[in-house]
Amino acid sequence: MKKTNFSNWFNDLLVDAQIMDVRYPIKGLYVWFPFGFKLRKLTYDVLRSLLDRDHEEAYFPLLIPENELLKESEHIKGFEEEVFWVTRGGFGELDIPLALRPTSEAAIYPIFSIWIRSHADLPLKIYQLVNAFRYETKHTRPLIRLREITSFAEAHTAHTSWEDAELQTAAAVELYKEFYDRLGIPYIVSRRPTWDKFPGADYTLAFDTLMPDGKSLQIGTIHHLGTNFAKTFDVTYEDRDGNQQFVNQTCYGISERCIAAVISVHGDDKGLILPPEISPVQVAIVPIYSKQADSEAILKACSEIQQELSHYRVVIDTDDIRPGAKFYKWEKQGVPIRLEIGPRDLSSGSVTLVRRDTREKESVKRTEMQGRLAQAMSNMLENIAERARAFQVSHMVDIEMPEQAKGKKGIFRISWCGSESCGRKIQELSDADVLGETDPIEGRCPVCSAPTTIRALLARPY
Amino acid sequence: MKKTNFSNWFNDLLVDAQIMDVRYPIKGLYVWFPFGFKLRKLTYDVLRSLLDRDHEEAYFPLLIPENELLKESEHIKGFEEEVFWVTRGGFGELDIPLALRPTSEAAIYPIFSIWIRSHADLPLKIYQLVNAFRYETKHTRPLIRLREITSFAEAHTAHTSWEDAELQTAAAVELYKEFYDRLGIPYIVSRRPTWDKFPGADYTLAFDTLMPDGKSLQIGTIHHLGTNFAKTFDVTYEDRDGNQQFVNQTCYGISERCIAAVISVHGDDKGLILPPEISPVQVAIVPIYSKQADSEAILKACSEIQQELSHYRVVIDTDDIRPGAKFYKWEKQGVPIRLEIGPRDLSSGSVTLVRRDTREKESVKRTEMQGRLAQAMSNMLENIAERARAFQVSHMVDIEMPEQAKGKKGIFRISWCGSESCGRKIQELSDADVLGETDPIEGRCPVCSAPTTIRALLARPY
Repeated sequence: MKKTNFSNWFNDLLVDAQIMDVRYPIKGLYVWFPFGFKLRKLTYDVLRSLLDRDHEEAYFPLLIPENELLKESEHIKGFEEEVFWVTRGGFGELDIPLALRPTSEAAIYPIFSIWIRSHADLPLKIYQLVNAFRYETKHTRPLIRLREITSFAEAHTAHTSWEDAELQTAAAVELYKEFYDRLGIPYIVSRRPTWDKFPGADYTLAFDTLMPDGKSLQIGTIHHLGTNFAKTFDVTYEDRDGNQQFVNQTCYGISERCIAAVISVHGDDKGLILPPEISPVQVAIVPIYSKQADSEAILKACSEIQQELSHYRVVIDTDDIRPGAKFYKWEKQGVPIRLEIGPRDLSSGSVTLVRRDTREKESVKRTEMQGRLAQAMSNMLENIAERARAFQVSHMVDIEMPEQAKGKKGIFRISWCGSESCGRKIQELSDADVLGETDPIEGRCPVCSAPTTIRALLARPY
Repeated sequence: MKKTNFSNWFNDLLVDAQIMDVRYPIKGLYVWFPFGFKLRKLTYDVLRSLLDRDHEEAYFPLLIPENELLKESEHIKGFEEEVFWVTRGGFGELDIPLALRPTSEAAIYPIFSIWIRSHADLPLKIYQLVNAFRYETKHTRPLIRLREITSFAEAHTAHTSWEDAELQTAAAVELYKEFYDRLGIPYIVSRRPTWDKFPGADYTLAFDTLMPDGKSLQIGTIHHLGTNFAKTFDVTYEDRDGNQQFVNQTCYGISERCIAAVISVHGDDKGLILPPEISPVQVAIVPIYSKQADSEAILKACSEIQQELSHYRVVIDTDDIRPGAKFYKWEKQGVPIRLEIGPRDLSSGSVTLVRRDTREKESVKRTEMQGRLAQAMSNMLENIAERARAFQVSHMVDIEMPEQAKGKKGIFRISWCGSESCGRKIQELSDADVLGETDPIEGRCPVCSAPTTIRALLARPY
């Protein structure tokens, strides 16, 4: 399983490590294995804990009536090619086709229009964790390009002013940074070019990460909606002077691409490498005995250790297979720490501790095990985060001419006047996409030669 | 808000207590308010903790291809009138219509057929918590009769023998009993008559509870599927002798009707009464002061108490409205304990503790508050469970002739020979449904006069 052949590596690993079963009989739909689902749950528990600080979770229906979805004209233009439509119920045609939510603005904002009455109701910050649907015609990929996005955490907020909504987009950026820092995933935040913003938004900020094959993966987006949707869905509030005003809105979301990133960025030829916080199994204890005579004492020691480590997610692997096969399995599933206990460990009052990220083995005294293990776990997150950051940095290249990016892997920074026409020309010449604007620097647009401080990020996105 | 007018009471309370918003613009679809969603989460946390003991959570796609859904002929006959069909993607017709899962047998069992290879893979016990869809043509009702069931916890198990699967149905009955005991909801378990079993099952066991209006609500079902689906979806395993055998299967599910039951069974004219374990707010602290001078000391005491009670879900209500309006609000939302703290409480080192179920007030010394509060919460669950049980028992009537049930409220027990024709005649004459068979007793069938030990339960179900 060579990660250098990334596409095969990814697809094989998903099944081998029991994350997603790709054998469901419809294109773009996949099954979460129990192990994968635990990883999903633990990952979204982190995201939920961050959102729960000042958002409230709710749930809005999956089905959106056609007339509501069509109301915001720019919004529907962005989605109409990829909406699934329910047209039949039982044996009859429905009076009005119902869309499976591609995203929930048109389901939520008519209700916001009821819930929001006065400035005292603002800001309103809601999120939901739901399935969403896109009729993808491109090549689909598990966790990355889906017809059923099973795990869409979408937040929707409403504010009294454009500036307050702008502050919320900044707060959402910080929230997503904290989330990805906890997963050890590096990211670049940029403002998407106008031709690639969310349909109906004033602007879009996006998180991208670099995949092992040199392509970029969008792993989170944040949209300032201004009053565009408020005007469409009549979401107003009474201000302090008794006047009706439109609210300003933001929305932002993360899908199971966050898990695609964890798998792709951290994994190696041996399989997954999971950050301890989200690993379904944090410690795998493998008893090692050749003689039956040893087994009872060793299993007893394993149980004692499991007891001592009860604040972690620990399994003892007592399957009737040889230890090598067990090592192979737990390495594939990315379990951070493996503890081996054999006759020699037993007689010396030690355990053999193996870290998944470095695969280093060390003998640790039982009395020091707790401390070493906690330290190893915390070092591990740092180490894999640093490794990932180094990879991303090494693939970040400043170029002067768009052609320099052509056929190359990575993310490129190039000066750009900021106009759509020059941006599209840069895309054409580099055979890459403008992800967005990054930190400014003095330079000249390679197309129109205008002096500029704007710099574009270029990459080939998934 | 009179509970005697149950239907209005229920609908009004859902909105007033912020459980479900019923103003979504499609029939049978509703919005979970944040408060309601917390109640849902806490309730399903209980269910999940029970399932997690020996089931694994997974996730299977919402969309089921028509050919898979049509495979099990009896199954599809039971559902075809109420399936929503996706027929369009973007601007085009789909090659094959896709059903929104009404339940997931046809999504899950083709994958079970891949996952299960040998007897060592059995038993397999999976569950998922998902949305499911029914094109209901009858009158829809929030939480009770829905087009989008938002919270369907469906378990699916596979076993080596019919007897093992039978044991699993018994284990599922125990699991559901434990769940409903923790919610203080009384139930009757019965075996559904053959004409009312799950389409494709060998038999169906069901949990019903009695609603305040005298109708019964089905709040859980458990199906022994035998090898019916295994034969359709080719789910086989290699037994110890190397022969291929069909698995025996069960499935069982609970929907948000569990929350409809909590609301309906326990609530009163003042609003919800929530079992402490699932109440989003367990303790509401209301500061009471008439003079501004008192306010600082009182708020300080409130904060201290909140600290002391940090293992509960506690809010201090500092809204700028009079205390009476706060009492009204927290009573409506069913918060188990209200603590009032005014100048007199402060000077005597006490708090005023009010229980939601009895509405009894008592002054409690601060030093004894922890103990009294824990006791009050535990008494409360007992009390509301006992009250509900007494109501159900008082509406359980033994009758000899079906006509005795006509126009009456409650659940009736009547002898029955067990034949479908006599059962249907009993239904006709009583204007009620045979829920199923209950504890046997010697008697005669009122229709054919045959001696029998079978007794039928009769009720008017939702």
